[in-house]
Amino acid sequence: MEFSTIQRAHARIGPHVHETPVLQSQLLNERYGAELVFKCENLQKVGAFKARGALNAVLSLDEAARRHGLATHSSGNHGAALAYAGQITGTATTVVMPEDSLPNKIAAVRGYGAEVILCPALERDAVCERLVKDTGAVLIHPYDDDRIIAGQGTAALEFLEQTDSLDVLIVPVGGGGLLAGTAVVGKSRSPGMQILGAEPDRSDDAIQSFATGERQRPRGFDTIADGLRAALGVRNFELIYQHADAILPVSEAAIIDATRTLMHYLKVVVEPSAAVPLAAIADHPHHFAGKRVGIILSGGNLDLDGPPWLTERLS
Amino acid sequence: MEFSTIQRAHARIGPHVHETPVLQSQLLNERYGAELVFKCENLQKVGAFKARGALNAVLSLDEAARRHGLATHSSGNHGAALAYAGQITGTATTVVMPEDSLPNKIAAVRGYGAEVILCPALERDAVCERLVKDTGAVLIHPYDDDRIIAGQGTAALEFLEQTDSLDVLIVPVGGGGLLAGTAVVGKSRSPGMQILGAEPDRSDDAIQSFATGERQRPRGFDTIADGLRAALGVRNFELIYQHADAILPVSEAAIIDATRTLMHYLKVVVEPSAAVPLAAIADHPHHFAGKRVGIILSGGNLDLDGPPWLTERLS
Repeated sequence: MEFSTIQRAHARIGPHVHETPVLQSQLLNERYGAELVFKCENLQKVGAFKARGALNAVLSLDEAARRHGLATHSSGNHGAALAYAGQITGTATTVVMPEDSLPNKIAAVRGYGAEVILCPALERDAVCERLVKDTGAVLIHPYDDDRIIAGQGTAALEFLEQTDSLDVLIVPVGGGGLLAGTAVVGKSRSPGMQILGAEPDRSDDAIQSFATGERQRPRGFDTIADGLRAALGVRNFELIYQHADAILPVSEAAIIDATRTLMHYLKVVVEPSAAVPLAAIADHPHHFAGKRVGIILSGGNLDLDGPPWLTERLS
Repeated sequence: MEFSTIQRAHARIGPHVHETPVLQSQLLNERYGAELVFKCENLQKVGAFKARGALNAVLSLDEAARRHGLATHSSGNHGAALAYAGQITGTATTVVMPEDSLPNKIAAVRGYGAEVILCPALERDAVCERLVKDTGAVLIHPYDDDRIIAGQGTAALEFLEQTDSLDVLIVPVGGGGLLAGTAVVGKSRSPGMQILGAEPDRSDDAIQSFATGERQRPRGFDTIADGLRAALGVRNFELIYQHADAILPVSEAAIIDATRTLMHYLKVVVEPSAAVPLAAIADHPHHFAGKRVGIILSGGNLDLDGPPWLTERLS
């Protein structure tokens, strides 16, 4: 993927997304022994960077291509993002969601006017495939799609324009849309900057894929970071393997602690997936000591009935 | 107070405070039937606008005046703000706090290096007075002080520079530092704009004072908005009576709902006091319908062990 593809995506989605703020906290810097710079995509439209990719994909389609509607499968934020893109373009949207999706995420998708089909988690691909075949809707995959990857990359593009140079840029990895787009931007705009992913160690298929050079299946999705319960995409793996520097494993305890820490010190609401990079800094401090570290806070769609302090989810 | 006093305060504190972001949410606008623009002082240093006033007061003192240290009484955010100002200027700081202050607020004051003296809530003035007499420390009152009021006014000054013109600007009232400073700025910079306060109806001394034209004692402090448990200041009352347009009473149920609503839709952490203006919009919708309304989110120092959903505090 060319950097210019991401620049074009940025121009395309600009009128419909927020330029999210960049925040810092002196107390957090002291606590982690590094200079931490946060790009607040939790304050993005639909509460997550996913608005960028979905909008880029949908705005790339002409009206004829959209006339039978949009469809996707998603455990949450991509579903809300596609629903939002459908709303903006006046396109009927259907989102297939696992039955165990968080209630606040299901409500958000419906809130943007999309139809929700609930199904067992393992059947979501099949249900979505059948839907597309039956209705003629266009499938907008949540991450394994160049238009989505280019859209997600616009967060890093904007971030690098908003802040002085970074030693490291770290983002969470689930399906790999954000990391793939970030890696393309980083290697093109700031070749000396390290591009890192952070992934729950209970769902470490990206780490295993990166280590072996071949895409591996996930061992499971048993992580509190519900936004990262996804298998690394084919296209995503290619770009990440080519452009990223490393992917760090993160413990569940560190994710919970980092979620709370961000809310306490930075005063923004984050969902556990968004706290995974800070958890990586806590679990691997030697990688970050004394460095200027950029972190993309991926989303803020925390189930507010979940805390204090998510401990019941920590088996 | 002259507007230029607030301009000078802004220049004085500039290097030590954040220019906090301004956020909007389409879903919140739809929910409340008005265009809501939020100035995020919950993302300010020490998590509250109070950093502005305390810094302006302390940076106005020369070294000789500070040599016996700084003292104040505060249930929280002003204490942390003064501790921060003491840290920046290398001045020993003591904060007298009511025994029933929130644990996270006591920890924050200590975290900025100040000494904390706990005492019964009703004795805090007396304890602080004795401390000042014994040590020679300078008392920096939390709100009844022109330097504090001018500092707090810088939030509105900055806000009006960051956003297009507003029909209404609404802020919470406790001691009245924020409303007094905001009213001076508003009436000088944007005379057609309404300046409103919002106050818990269980602690409505500002409302009663405004209605009678004489400063009234509070009936009680029995509100979940812990940051507003303070009697309106003398100087504050003068400025508010002269420059503000009205003060609206707010129910406890509306405060709790608004706190949650802000965290859910705006994805920022707010303490209950900061949600009081949105609660006023919910309780008095006819004042705001169809208008462009500026709201200063005063602070983000929520006790994260408090939710879900603060209901045990609602008697």
